[in-house]
Amino acid sequence: MDTTITPKMLEELLNVGIALSSTRDLRELLTLILREARRFTSADAGTLYLVKGGVLRAEVAQCQTFVERLGQEQADSLFSSFSLPVNMKSIAGAAAFTREVVNIPDVQNVDVSCLFQYSPDFDRKNNYSTHSNLAVPMLDREQNVIGVLQLINAKYKNRVVPFDARKTRLAQALASQAGVAIRNTLLTASLREAHLETLQRLGVAAEWRDKETANHIIRVAKFSALIAEALGWSEEMADMVEYASPMHDVGKLGIPDSILHKPGKLDPDERTIMEKHTVIGANILSNAKNEVMQWSRMVALGHHEKWDGSGYPQGISGSDIPPICQIVALADVYDALSCKRVYKPAFPHEKVMAIIHEENGRHFAPQMVKAFAGVIDRIVAVRDEYADKEEDFAKFRDYANIGIE
Amino acid sequence: MDTTITPKMLEELLNVGIALSSTRDLRELLTLILREARRFTSADAGTLYLVKGGVLRAEVAQCQTFVERLGQEQADSLFSSFSLPVNMKSIAGAAAFTREVVNIPDVQNVDVSCLFQYSPDFDRKNNYSTHSNLAVPMLDREQNVIGVLQLINAKYKNRVVPFDARKTRLAQALASQAGVAIRNTLLTASLREAHLETLQRLGVAAEWRDKETANHIIRVAKFSALIAEALGWSEEMADMVEYASPMHDVGKLGIPDSILHKPGKLDPDERTIMEKHTVIGANILSNAKNEVMQWSRMVALGHHEKWDGSGYPQGISGSDIPPICQIVALADVYDALSCKRVYKPAFPHEKVMAIIHEENGRHFAPQMVKAFAGVIDRIVAVRDEYADKEEDFAKFRDYANIGIE
Repeated sequence: MDTTITPKMLEELLNVGIALSSTRDLRELLTLILREARRFTSADAGTLYLVKGGVLRAEVAQCQTFVERLGQEQADSLFSSFSLPVNMKSIAGAAAFTREVVNIPDVQNVDVSCLFQYSPDFDRKNNYSTHSNLAVPMLDREQNVIGVLQLINAKYKNRVVPFDARKTRLAQALASQAGVAIRNTLLTASLREAHLETLQRLGVAAEWRDKETANHIIRVAKFSALIAEALGWSEEMADMVEYASPMHDVGKLGIPDSILHKPGKLDPDERTIMEKHTVIGANILSNAKNEVMQWSRMVALGHHEKWDGSGYPQGISGSDIPPICQIVALADVYDALSCKRVYKPAFPHEKVMAIIHEENGRHFAPQMVKAFAGVIDRIVAVRDEYADKEEDFAKFRDYANIGIE
Repeated sequence: MDTTITPKMLEELLNVGIALSSTRDLRELLTLILREARRFTSADAGTLYLVKGGVLRAEVAQCQTFVERLGQEQADSLFSSFSLPVNMKSIAGAAAFTREVVNIPDVQNVDVSCLFQYSPDFDRKNNYSTHSNLAVPMLDREQNVIGVLQLINAKYKNRVVPFDARKTRLAQALASQAGVAIRNTLLTASLREAHLETLQRLGVAAEWRDKETANHIIRVAKFSALIAEALGWSEEMADMVEYASPMHDVGKLGIPDSILHKPGKLDPDERTIMEKHTVIGANILSNAKNEVMQWSRMVALGHHEKWDGSGYPQGISGSDIPPICQIVALADVYDALSCKRVYKPAFPHEKVMAIIHEENGRHFAPQMVKAFAGVIDRIVAVRDEYADKEEDFAKFRDYANIGIE
């Protein structure tokens, strides 16, 4: 058995490195890392762990034997995530703890002096026989352990063999590439999350004046994303809808209290000013370079347009109304009807649905009502998960005594 | 001359790939790419172009001969960026246009049928002799051309030789890695910019009620970052100050118009409510996961504290006031004094500085006044660059007639 690394393998490693760096979705990336690591080392099985909150969390597991025995889908369903402490009591834990490769030729045959003893529970339960084991720590550029790549049962001519020096080196090379790629993907994800959080706060800030709650913003965003999904829009575009909708009422900042908080009906002049919140919102968000805010501007401007043309500020109708505005219009009204407000209780579900269906083709786009109705169970679940609590409204009452949260 | 790629070279390429993926700063990344590409191909010189707005823009250039002749610093100063169209009229342009490697053994000796003719201007001006030329397009995963790596004068035993097949392959391998790394770095940068833009809009939205302008937000952020720099804070932390300061007044959203817009002096009860804008701001921003917003919360809460303890809402003093709040307090007051407001003209520079020095050790932290005074020229330049125009205030006057911007 030749144990040198061939130029062909190195070239493949180069290509894998490029593929890893180009993969933006974390789950896809982890799956790819484990698959390539198993391919390079002819390993029957493997688990990929990431360090989270000081422990190792199993994120992905793969096992060729299970796939052959049960089919891909069944094999995948066997996996449920679990955690291991970063210490010497497990093979993966020891790799993370020592930052060194841990190579066990046969876990069934570990010296009694060894700190970790193999637990046969998994094998017994799954009718599997674990022997050779290789755990490689994945480090980022600053040498922080970000995870462990564990490979199980190296195969050679249908027999299980220990992981030799070549396989170990290949796994290490791959782990180095993987560490940087994972770190980059996590960084990108955290930048996206930070941005989303800020967008939500901008919405929350705006709603403060209108005595709406932070949960209102989150609910409308999630309802809108669900409708986009139901329409068959791409995941990317559904995310965009979720990001762009929180600021629909940002223009209310520009409306004087005397109009915004008037208890009775607005007179025509007051109504004209009130309706300007759409235009003011669009102006606050105008000329943005980033795409999310360009969509936000569209939503702020168009979320009070109606399908039959009787809305504002432009009075456009039908397909002249951008689809994202048609979605948010429906999500926003659904939220106003189905949830409690300072000035009104939540309406019962039947009443809400009756109103929405009555407005189908008048206020709302038929296509959107249909999509909405198709995911109503998930919509109701979001409504309940993010329901406002009594104390969410309390802060609007007593300015002078407001305390630091 | 052996032209096969050795395992050692491949291993080096692997390491370079990891180094490229870990480099977050675009300039540092481009410099590293060109340096490694020259090292792998023994090229005396090279230029790295990125595609921007449909043209190739030279971002980095390196030349060993110039370094030996003039020293690093002088050699670097020779470079000034220039642009080339993506067409067949230049070597780099042709590589971008065709997405293929362009390899010219000797530019002084190009067939007349060739579309691009070498222009000797550069050589004559710089007393240099360009001969062999290799231009490799850099593509991202979706096969978009994102730039061109151009290498000049391959050396072998002190002679200039053409780029052979091995050098070409190495440059291509490196260009593949480089393309993905550049794309990732640009993506991260654009996510950061999008977030900053959103943070600014949140500030702009808040100031809308207070009849402040978008430029006010930008100025205070830039003044604050300049003070942080003058204090010797890291670039990262100075950026954080710039990101976190726009939301200092976000809590004014929660203050009723009757108080916020009262023309005369506030009575004690009204003042108590007005001062709550710090607490409301902190509450709007509380419990954020992202670090920028955690700093923003601190700024919103503490930017009206005074060095002598006479500020609000907590009345803390001296070093109990977080330094970032000490900075923004000074930047915010300087802006209010030195720029026009709806209710007051800009004060002359001498008067502004006199007030600030008088408040040194009372309102303002001495350390911050000192840092501020040390960069006053740059502060004044920012003040002038982002000065408000008359029309910036116009929108606050006539709600009913506001139009879509």
